[in-house]
Amino acid sequence: MINAVGREIPDELLTDGREVYQGKYHMDGKSFRKAGPMAVRREKPQESKVLGSIREACERCGAHDGMTVSFHHAFRNGDYVTSMVMKVLVEEMGLKDLTVATTSLGSAQDRLADYIEQGKIIGIQSSGVRGRIGEVISAGKLRTPAVIRSHGGRPRAIETGELHIDISFIAASTSDDYGNAKGTGGKHDCGAMGYAVADSHYADHVVVITDTLVPFPNMPAPIRSIDVDAVVVVSAVGDPAKIGTKEARITKDPRNLMMAENCARVIASTPYFKEGFSFQTGVGGPSLAVNRFLEQYMVDKGIRMGFALGGMGGNICDLMDKGLVGKLLDTQDFDMKAIRHLQDHPDRHLEISTSEYANAANKGAYVNKLDFVVLAALEIDTDFNVNVLTGSDGVLRGAPGGHPDTAEGSKCCIIVTPLVRGRMATVCKRVVTVTTPGDCVDVLVTDYGIAVNPKRPDLIECLDRASIPHVTIQELQEKAYRLVGTPDDLEWEDRVVAVLEARDGTILDVIRKIKPLKL
Amino acid sequence: MINAVGREIPDELLTDGREVYQGKYHMDGKSFRKAGPMAVRREKPQESKVLGSIREACERCGAHDGMTVSFHHAFRNGDYVTSMVMKVLVEEMGLKDLTVATTSLGSAQDRLADYIEQGKIIGIQSSGVRGRIGEVISAGKLRTPAVIRSHGGRPRAIETGELHIDISFIAASTSDDYGNAKGTGGKHDCGAMGYAVADSHYADHVVVITDTLVPFPNMPAPIRSIDVDAVVVVSAVGDPAKIGTKEARITKDPRNLMMAENCARVIASTPYFKEGFSFQTGVGGPSLAVNRFLEQYMVDKGIRMGFALGGMGGNICDLMDKGLVGKLLDTQDFDMKAIRHLQDHPDRHLEISTSEYANAANKGAYVNKLDFVVLAALEIDTDFNVNVLTGSDGVLRGAPGGHPDTAEGSKCCIIVTPLVRGRMATVCKRVVTVTTPGDCVDVLVTDYGIAVNPKRPDLIECLDRASIPHVTIQELQEKAYRLVGTPDDLEWEDRVVAVLEARDGTILDVIRKIKPLKL
Repeated sequence: MINAVGREIPDELLTDGREVYQGKYHMDGKSFRKAGPMAVRREKPQESKVLGSIREACERCGAHDGMTVSFHHAFRNGDYVTSMVMKVLVEEMGLKDLTVATTSLGSAQDRLADYIEQGKIIGIQSSGVRGRIGEVISAGKLRTPAVIRSHGGRPRAIETGELHIDISFIAASTSDDYGNAKGTGGKHDCGAMGYAVADSHYADHVVVITDTLVPFPNMPAPIRSIDVDAVVVVSAVGDPAKIGTKEARITKDPRNLMMAENCARVIASTPYFKEGFSFQTGVGGPSLAVNRFLEQYMVDKGIRMGFALGGMGGNICDLMDKGLVGKLLDTQDFDMKAIRHLQDHPDRHLEISTSEYANAANKGAYVNKLDFVVLAALEIDTDFNVNVLTGSDGVLRGAPGGHPDTAEGSKCCIIVTPLVRGRMATVCKRVVTVTTPGDCVDVLVTDYGIAVNPKRPDLIECLDRASIPHVTIQELQEKAYRLVGTPDDLEWEDRVVAVLEARDGTILDVIRKIKPLKL
Repeated sequence: MINAVGREIPDELLTDGREVYQGKYHMDGKSFRKAGPMAVRREKPQESKVLGSIREACERCGAHDGMTVSFHHAFRNGDYVTSMVMKVLVEEMGLKDLTVATTSLGSAQDRLADYIEQGKIIGIQSSGVRGRIGEVISAGKLRTPAVIRSHGGRPRAIETGELHIDISFIAASTSDDYGNAKGTGGKHDCGAMGYAVADSHYADHVVVITDTLVPFPNMPAPIRSIDVDAVVVVSAVGDPAKIGTKEARITKDPRNLMMAENCARVIASTPYFKEGFSFQTGVGGPSLAVNRFLEQYMVDKGIRMGFALGGMGGNICDLMDKGLVGKLLDTQDFDMKAIRHLQDHPDRHLEISTSEYANAANKGAYVNKLDFVVLAALEIDTDFNVNVLTGSDGVLRGAPGGHPDTAEGSKCCIIVTPLVRGRMATVCKRVVTVTTPGDCVDVLVTDYGIAVNPKRPDLIECLDRASIPHVTIQELQEKAYRLVGTPDDLEWEDRVVAVLEARDGTILDVIRKIKPLKL
C-alpha cells in the first residue's frame, strides 16, 4: 500500500491492525488504554537491592532465550553498559534469539554486530542505527526487520504495549542501594537520563547498573526505587569524554555560520519570536550555531526565551546564565558543561522523560508547546520530506531522534543544511528514506538560499515583510543537481531490513537490503 | 471469617477474590500487572488547555451518573475545591449515584454530608473520615459501605485497578495553561501534592483547578501536563491558614513533653540510632515534640539524620537548616514554614508521591527504608493493635493516614499516647477498630510508663541496657482501667457502614452502624 508520503509499504507488514502513515495529526484526539506494567509487592523493611554481578541480576530477573532487553544511550559513544550486559547474556549465559530495544546505537555497541551475525541477536529496536550495526542490518544479516522509532515514538510504543521489555538495564552515574538513580554526582556523569524513564516504568524487570553507589536517598532522581528490582555496581559505566561527538560540537565553518545567521533571521521575522518564545536545536553542524545569532536578536528586541527543549549543550546553558532563558527542559546532555549545569540548577535546568518531551500518545508533550525547532538533514526533497537515517548509499547510518517529533509539534520547523555535500545533492527530488514527513517541515535554509513550504503562506509573508529573499525548493534542487549532477537511483533487493515508524506508530517508510555491487 | 487480628469479616464482603487480613508481609514478593491508565493522543501544536468553568471541564470529560471522582486533601481544613466541584456535579448538573474517592475528608467537606443524605453521593473512599461526613456514614446514611484506606493503600488500589477514577479534580496553587501544576508559587499555597500524583497518572480524565495561572512551563511540578486534560481557573482553591490544624501543632503540655522526651530516649537506645538514620513523626499531639528532644541526642552523639519522611512541619525544616538532616521526602506540608522551605530547597526538600512514600505494592517504597516512626493513637490494646479511626463511641472521626504503612515498613514503630483521655482508657483490652495491626507496633510510650511488644526481645534488651524502665502493656491497661473504670461494650447493629482495608488490600476490620441510644 502507498502511504501519505508516497512510499510503498508491503502488505505483509500491515498485520495486527498496523496502518500506513496517513498524514500529520491523523491520530490526534483518539483515546486508548495504556499497557499495564508489571510490579512486585515489597512490604518488608528492605536494606538493599544491590546484587553481586550482572549475571546474578539477569538470573534473578528470569533472563531467557527470546527475551527483549533495553538500554539507553545517554553516554552516547562512551557507553560501556550495553556491550557489557550483552556479553554476559550471549557469551556467559549462552542466551539466543534476543531482541535489543535501545534508544540509540552507534560504534560504542559495535560488538552487537557480531551477535547479529552469529544469530544471537535477532531483533533491533532503536532510533539511531550507526556504525557496524547499521552495516550488518543493511546487509540483511538481522533475522527480523529492525524497528526504527523517533525519541517520542519509543515511549509511545512502550506505553501502548507495542514494545514489551523483559529486562531494562539502566546505566546510571549514581545510584543508592535501593535503585534511585541519576546521571550526576558520580565518577562518570552522563547528565539527564530522560531516555530511560519509560523503560523504568514499563519493563517487567529493571536493573540499575552504576559505578558510584551513594547514600540513600539519591534524590531527586529520574529513576525511582519504586520501579527498580536490582542494583549492580561495576567498575565503570561509561566515558563522559565520548558524549560530545563531532555532531554535537558547534561549527566554525563560515558556510555553516552563514546559514545559522540566516536561520536566526528567519526566526526573528515570525510572530512567534516574542517574549517567552520556545526553542530547540538539534545536534547537527549548523543547528547549534543558531543560538549564537539568536542571542543578538533577543538582546536587540529585549525579549527572553521561555524555555529551551531537548538535548542540551553548554551554549544554551550559557544563554540561561546570561538571563536569556527561563527554563531548560532537558532530555540529554551533549557536553560536560551541560551536565554540570544540570546538577547545579535544580530549580530551572530540569530533566524530563522522552514521554514528556515528545510522545504523541499522551495528553500533551512539550513539543506541542514548541515555537521553533532548528534541525539538520542528510537529504530533503522537493516535497520537504527529510531523511536523517540512511546515507546516499542507502545504508543505515543515522537516527530520526527527536526530528519528526519536534517537526510535527512545533509551530515553525526550520531545516538547515548545505545544498550539497561533496558530490551529493542534499536537496533532491526524492529522499532515500522519509524520516520526517514534508507536511511537518516549514522552512529550508541552505547556503544557496532559503525556501518556505508553500503550505505555510503565513511564513512566506513574514519573510517578505522582513525582506528576506527566498526561492522555491525546486529551484534549490535544480541548483544542487547542476552543481553535482543528477544522482543515480539506488538499487535495492525486495527484502525489508528495517521498518521506520512514524511517531504515531504507523509505517512511514521501509529500508530494503542494498543490492550488492556487481564486480 | 475471623482474620489475623481476630476481627469477624462478613463473608458477603469476600467477593472478587477479596481476602481477609492474614498478617504482615503476607503479600511480600508477589508479582502482578498494574492497571492500564487511559490516555489521549495529542500530536498537534496546542496553545492551552484552560476551559471557562468547572462545569465545562466536567462536560468535556464526560461527567455522568454513577461515576467516581477524586480529590486530594493537601489544603486539609482549608480545602475549597472538593465542595466547589461536588456542588457543580450535584446541584448544577443534577448528577447522582456518585462515588467520591479522596485522600481525606474533614469538616471542610461537610457539604458532602448533605449529598450523602440526599442519596446523590452513594460511595465514599477515603483515608480520613471526620466531621459531619463521619457522622452520617456511622449513622448508616451512605448507600454503600465506605472504603477506608491508608495513604499507601490508596495508590495501591489505584494502580491495581481496584479503585477506578473517572475524573480527578486536582486543586493546585499554581498551574500553567498546559496543566503542569504544583502547590507553591501561588496566591494560596498548599506545599507538597504527593497525594494527587497517583490520581493524575491513573484517572481517565484529569482536571487541574487553580487560582494562579503562571507562564509555561510551571516546572518542576508533581502534576505533569502529559497527564492533564483540562485546566480551570477559579478565584480561590483554598485557605492555607487552615492547613495547620490543632493536630499538627506542637504541644506545650508538660505531660506530652515528658512522653516525647521518653520516646527520644527509647530511640537513642536502639542500634538504628546512628549516622544517617531515618525518621518520621505523625501529626498527633506529642509526636512532633519528639523532634525537639531527638535533636539533643543527635548533637550529643555527633550524628545526623539521613532523611525524614512523610508530612513535614516547620520544626523538621529547622532541623535540616541546622545541618542535622540530609533530605526531606515530603508528601504534604503542615504549616507555612514547611511550604516555603519546600519551595526554597529544590535540591534537598523533595516532594514525593504517596506511591513512593508508602505503597506496599511497588518495588520499594520509602517506608521500607525507615528506621523509626513515632505515631499517635486513639486507642491501643493489649495485642498492640492501634485504632486511629473511630472514637470511643464507635463513630468515624479519624484517619489511618500513613500509620499502618510506616508501622509495617519501619524497623521501629513507637506509639506515643497518654494512658487515659478524660474518662476514656487509651490503653485497653480491645480497640474499637484495628487500623494498624499489633504485629507492626514495637513500643508504646505513655505518661504512666513504657511497654515493648514481646515480639521484639531485641528492643527490650536495648531499653534494659539503657536503664529505661518498662512494664507490660497489660499493666498499663490495668492501670488505665483502675483510673477511669472498665469501658462498657459498644452496641452495634449488623449493618457494615465502612470497610477498613489493610495496606495490602485485604480486609483488616469493618465498622458497623452504631445502635441508636434508647431514650
